[in-house]
Amino acid sequence: MATDEFSLIAQYFSACGAEGDDTLLGVGDDCALLAPPAGEVLAVTTDTLISSVHFPHHSPARLIAQRALAVNLSDMAAMGATPRWFQLALTLPDSDQSWLAEFSAGLNAMACEFNCALVGGDTTRGPLTISITLIGTVPSREALKRSGAKPGDTVFVSGTLGDGAAGLAVVEGRLSLSVEDTGFLEERFWQPQARVAQGLKIREFASAAIDISDGLVADLGHIAKASQVGALVEVDKLPLSPALRRAAGSERGLTWALSGGDDYELCFTVPASGLAQCQRLIDEGVLTATAIGQITAGQAVRCVDGQGSSYDVTHSGYQHF
Amino acid sequence: MATDEFSLIAQYFSACGAEGDDTLLGVGDDCALLAPPAGEVLAVTTDTLISSVHFPHHSPARLIAQRALAVNLSDMAAMGATPRWFQLALTLPDSDQSWLAEFSAGLNAMACEFNCALVGGDTTRGPLTISITLIGTVPSREALKRSGAKPGDTVFVSGTLGDGAAGLAVVEGRLSLSVEDTGFLEERFWQPQARVAQGLKIREFASAAIDISDGLVADLGHIAKASQVGALVEVDKLPLSPALRRAAGSERGLTWALSGGDDYELCFTVPASGLAQCQRLIDEGVLTATAIGQITAGQAVRCVDGQGSSYDVTHSGYQHF
Repeated sequence: MATDEFSLIAQYFSACGAEGDDTLLGVGDDCALLAPPAGEVLAVTTDTLISSVHFPHHSPARLIAQRALAVNLSDMAAMGATPRWFQLALTLPDSDQSWLAEFSAGLNAMACEFNCALVGGDTTRGPLTISITLIGTVPSREALKRSGAKPGDTVFVSGTLGDGAAGLAVVEGRLSLSVEDTGFLEERFWQPQARVAQGLKIREFASAAIDISDGLVADLGHIAKASQVGALVEVDKLPLSPALRRAAGSERGLTWALSGGDDYELCFTVPASGLAQCQRLIDEGVLTATAIGQITAGQAVRCVDGQGSSYDVTHSGYQHF
Repeated sequence: MATDEFSLIAQYFSACGAEGDDTLLGVGDDCALLAPPAGEVLAVTTDTLISSVHFPHHSPARLIAQRALAVNLSDMAAMGATPRWFQLALTLPDSDQSWLAEFSAGLNAMACEFNCALVGGDTTRGPLTISITLIGTVPSREALKRSGAKPGDTVFVSGTLGDGAAGLAVVEGRLSLSVEDTGFLEERFWQPQARVAQGLKIREFASAAIDISDGLVADLGHIAKASQVGALVEVDKLPLSPALRRAAGSERGLTWALSGGDDYELCFTVPASGLAQCQRLIDEGVLTATAIGQITAGQAVRCVDGQGSSYDVTHSGYQHF
């Protein structure tokens, strides 16, 4: 089965996954053969999506494919790396040609947008599961780790937060909104915009970075733990989209922004020496980012409101449905 | 869930998966950071094993882990590449610490044997599924593709064939044998010996190679198709183990050797210019390989018996249970 179904998927990738340049041999042999650029190291990440765990059963194949690749691209962005190739492990309950065609078209569209090539994988029979391993490259010294934050660094986030959790609520029918807001939030859930271009920009001055998949407090906590520091978040500064404010109100909006998960925005820290460059990129519109707090001594992530009083985060954490 | 369970798995890898040398950053950040040796290209492969499809339900965790890594190592061997790093996507029905410990110990033992490091992955909740993406390296011109066979080349196979299918029959209780033969064949199914060292040796002179996962006729057929040639197999020359002969008799033994699958031996082709070197390695015991036929013009794989008469292969192909 593997060969035929994989060949079907692969044929959709002729447009942007062709052999040549850095892909010496793609789908169809025992291994793919890939030539990374000289002087760069590999950045590798794997994420798995399972039907009814990470997305509702019977979701559109095109959207499943795009979300599966997007969450991997987001990890690449958080490392400041350039995505180049990916392997697809696809488990399917049955061989549905039209489903495969739609899935492949969606995957191809996003792969082309980010200029990365499907170079191999495996198809097997079982409950719908999509696991992607994405390989990128980055100059060794420029990779953005979680462990580089220092007290005094400013904490930034890209884009707006909380839309992913609101989007999931819309997809699950728990929120009912205007057509326009529904479309915006659903798209934020299904097609998170991996911040690859921004990751490449901030690696010039950021001291640490992570992508926000489990919620800001949890993921900033990963930076704090890896860097052996604390962090202070000013909740009044959190960037919330107008659609989120209308959908959830301020309080629930803040809860989703702090702990809702599924945003796939970047959280990064910038030392004083990099603030001017960061601000210039924001002013030029190259970077969409908001300063939301500071790295501190200590080890916890604390949240305060506009009056400097402690803000009690409802630590719902990330709840798969 | 991902972090805790993955940390548990990763802690077993301290012995051979430590950071340093070519692993700049392992498990625990958004991506692993890996430094391939200068002058080599990447060889990448992915294989997925699913409970009740690729192995019986309730199989020992240690054996599942070793088989999952072995089938990937076999693809690396067939490319003539050196395995270096792997990503593990593990889907589990529940969080069973003792199962995870046994799985990790088995995986670690094989990873250490082949000197490759677990550098990342994902754990998710669902039906037991193990998907491994293995990354190796090979000097670009020395990679063994399927497409290099020419008419007149001699066809070799490593080891003995048919043991994998017989081993599966034993595991499933369809064959009853002496304790010794049972042990040998079960081990051949569960712990196929990926021919990595032999792959590195034959890349000096072989024109094409593949690993035998679907059965000799099917996999030699892949070489024939990719190389646009035919092949002639002399069935009397096929290397069958004594245990297989006792277990299956000659006729069923040949059928399993030709089309049983799961052997994970190498099938490779050698031009006349490389035969002396190949034979020397066989004589020295460096290579365990048997000449079983010739590459021909045409496009089909044909089998003949000792009298040169056409041998009718029962094309059972590879049947997952």
